[in-house]
Amino acid sequence: MIRRSFLLALTSAAMLGGCAYTAANADQPNGDSAPQVPKNIIMVVADGMGPAFTTAYRNYQDDPDTPQVESSVLDDILVGAASTYPAQESGFVTDSAAAATALATGIKSYNGAIGVDSDKQPLESVMHRAKAQGMRTGLAVTSQIVHATPASYVAHNESRHNYDELAESFFDFRVNGEFVADVMLGGGTQFFERKDRDLVAEFIDNGYEYADTYNRLAAVPTGSQVLGLFAPVGLPPALDDTRQNRLSYLTEQAVKHLENDKGFFLLVEASQVDWAAHANDIAAAMAEMHDLALTMAYLKDYVKQHPDTLVILTADHSTGGLTIGADGDYRWSPEYIQNLKASTRAIAANMGEADKPGEFIASQLGFELNDEEKRHFDDLKKANKVERYTALKAFIDGKTNTGWTTSGHTGVDVEVFAFGAGAAALAGKMDNTHIAHTIFSMLARGGSQQQPASEKPVKATNSNPNCDYKSDWRCQ
Amino acid sequence: MIRRSFLLALTSAAMLGGCAYTAANADQPNGDSAPQVPKNIIMVVADGMGPAFTTAYRNYQDDPDTPQVESSVLDDILVGAASTYPAQESGFVTDSAAAATALATGIKSYNGAIGVDSDKQPLESVMHRAKAQGMRTGLAVTSQIVHATPASYVAHNESRHNYDELAESFFDFRVNGEFVADVMLGGGTQFFERKDRDLVAEFIDNGYEYADTYNRLAAVPTGSQVLGLFAPVGLPPALDDTRQNRLSYLTEQAVKHLENDKGFFLLVEASQVDWAAHANDIAAAMAEMHDLALTMAYLKDYVKQHPDTLVILTADHSTGGLTIGADGDYRWSPEYIQNLKASTRAIAANMGEADKPGEFIASQLGFELNDEEKRHFDDLKKANKVERYTALKAFIDGKTNTGWTTSGHTGVDVEVFAFGAGAAALAGKMDNTHIAHTIFSMLARGGSQQQPASEKPVKATNSNPNCDYKSDWRCQ
Repeated sequence: MIRRSFLLALTSAAMLGGCAYTAANADQPNGDSAPQVPKNIIMVVADGMGPAFTTAYRNYQDDPDTPQVESSVLDDILVGAASTYPAQESGFVTDSAAAATALATGIKSYNGAIGVDSDKQPLESVMHRAKAQGMRTGLAVTSQIVHATPASYVAHNESRHNYDELAESFFDFRVNGEFVADVMLGGGTQFFERKDRDLVAEFIDNGYEYADTYNRLAAVPTGSQVLGLFAPVGLPPALDDTRQNRLSYLTEQAVKHLENDKGFFLLVEASQVDWAAHANDIAAAMAEMHDLALTMAYLKDYVKQHPDTLVILTADHSTGGLTIGADGDYRWSPEYIQNLKASTRAIAANMGEADKPGEFIASQLGFELNDEEKRHFDDLKKANKVERYTALKAFIDGKTNTGWTTSGHTGVDVEVFAFGAGAAALAGKMDNTHIAHTIFSMLARGGSQQQPASEKPVKATNSNPNCDYKSDWRCQ
Repeated sequence: MIRRSFLLALTSAAMLGGCAYTAANADQPNGDSAPQVPKNIIMVVADGMGPAFTTAYRNYQDDPDTPQVESSVLDDILVGAASTYPAQESGFVTDSAAAATALATGIKSYNGAIGVDSDKQPLESVMHRAKAQGMRTGLAVTSQIVHATPASYVAHNESRHNYDELAESFFDFRVNGEFVADVMLGGGTQFFERKDRDLVAEFIDNGYEYADTYNRLAAVPTGSQVLGLFAPVGLPPALDDTRQNRLSYLTEQAVKHLENDKGFFLLVEASQVDWAAHANDIAAAMAEMHDLALTMAYLKDYVKQHPDTLVILTADHSTGGLTIGADGDYRWSPEYIQNLKASTRAIAANMGEADKPGEFIASQLGFELNDEEKRHFDDLKKANKVERYTALKAFIDGKTNTGWTTSGHTGVDVEVFAFGAGAAALAGKMDNTHIAHTIFSMLARGGSQQQPASEKPVKATNSNPNCDYKSDWRCQ
């Protein structure tokens, strides 16, 4: 079973038990309050991954044949936690745009803001700064590349919903005349290959390699500037994609093209943990967490080989109000979501065409259903897709005893993970803006500056002579 | 307004912003892998305080007149997080007994176990070890002192529900002939002053001072052995007690009696965060969090004066499936729970006697209700207490936009806070048993051993010649 081997690949024999891990502390500079300066910085955002998701994932990949719960790939790299609240006008619960703007620029803004402050003025991001310092830059995500998180590192817009404008900004907004991102991997052909403007062609004309399948990406010469768009909008869910390890694959490809003497900044986003959680779909959420875990395992190996690299992982917020256990029952049963043959959404979509929907569901979920449960799904044969999907998720929530409180976000602090050069600078409780401040500070101390650098976040400057900021967001 | 001043006492001007706190790291022994050995250890358990509670508390005590969210007293002492799962036979979601047994003894056990392993064999707790090392020992809690958490540090029983047996164990079980706890402060006269056995009298006859009011406790000579029981079962809720700062008061009193040349071990429990969360009562939960915050503020001051003291704070689990925001609405509004004149339970109980329940509710909650809202409560005048309480909580959940998924516990990892001597040993992700292992290790390295000490948890030995373990749990 592909799914099972996908899951078991990361099951570790190590117990989260007798000792606390101090990945960051081991790296702490002796008596020096300035963070150690990494050559490369890889910022990983797991969209929507509140604390319940990382615990749930540990349980999900637990080996039931041992008495202890095996530690996950995240356990030995936890260093702290971050508050996520947006600018005051948006209250205590952030959206992905305000949170990404905080993580990218160090400035709190309103919900919906892409790289702009509360006055809608453009802000410099750590990716802009890295580019200004002469580093290579890139992003690898499972959403469309103009979705809130990657967009906030690259572009500026008053609204996250202006996808077409954001795609244009990816081409039009420059740092010292250079494109902001050398490598861009994810989804989004719908926004880049348009009738009114073919941005893919424009990138190709400006020297970028283009790939629209994972296999074509593999053939791109190492060290290229690359635009890779593998879906019209977001990538398929992990469980349905041709590569279930798509995020770790894209991350590895991005690193291959970014490596250079002056260092690189790479943004990685496990975008669809959030999407699964918005749908209150625990099976999809855990599959997305597993793709993230594969990515972190790759990055751990990479840092072993390249100890001058810093990797940071955090979430922008928690989504769905996920709880491990619900309804007064002290139980959570991940065994019901470990053997799915396709995503919950795909199973629900396809059950309408099955002769015996109940038996089809059992074969797709990978566990036996009793007669009553089968009849329940047989009776849903003629229901519409949304009703079938809702029923399937509710069934899985009951089996696993998973709780949800919202289709939106919640305000709980998120975990911060870090390892590699300078990781000690991220220890303890912090605000999400501290992560950007830390990266700015490291970039300011790096050895490859091409212009005077500030440790503080600053307003972005319009360095594209073809653009008029006042009239055109896309140029900022 | 008493309530408001109670709340504002801790509002800090500091922003949780520009820098990460590294309380534990600052204390890290240079190049020495053994934890620094504290003279005194204060273990604080906030029962039920999952990550959402600490974020919610920060929001609850935020000053709306400033753009940032003020940091809470917990923010600069976060060092890590702990998994809480019980022994395998109880699944992934722990109860307070199994979690307290893990925190007290370093051994996972089944839900319901008090200081015994999965085979129901008694285990040595860190409090037993401290007593064996010649230290003074104590506990200060807001539940009855025989409730799961304190009981697991003192006694052994196959079931947390055997309160009478547990009370007898507090007297009968000895370490090297000595009582386990020199100071015991909390509730529980119902279990100690019984017709069949008056354990209060037995403690008095054995040299303990006894106090049944907070003011009588204040008169006990410093350095006494003390039994203080201030309620039949648990203490009143923080909002209804004569001392809303009851936990910090009891903690200060306990420390006063425990201080000595050989050091002390003190267990503190904010027991009723859990009770409020079981009831899905956000107003009560935040008031209990505030009493905890006052306690931590006192302990921070204490450690400043006594840097040879280690303070650890964690939760045993999360309760209620609390989420900050719910139902698709990106909002959480703590302003509706900042000015209560009494606990939600007391307000609901008393509204039945009010001429105009709607107006009474408004006066007790401290904010205006519109006519429809008042009518809603007027219509509940003749409902029973449970219905009124349920309606009031639902009203507050709607106003604040608070989410809950369960009347029980959930399995999310909990935060770990630590400061003072040796705090660096608690950094990063750990299992809850690691906290006990760390304390055992510190006790083994302490200077006041009276007998050979092991760093590993061990089975408890029956040192009371009057008891036969095989036939009587109370003697273990």
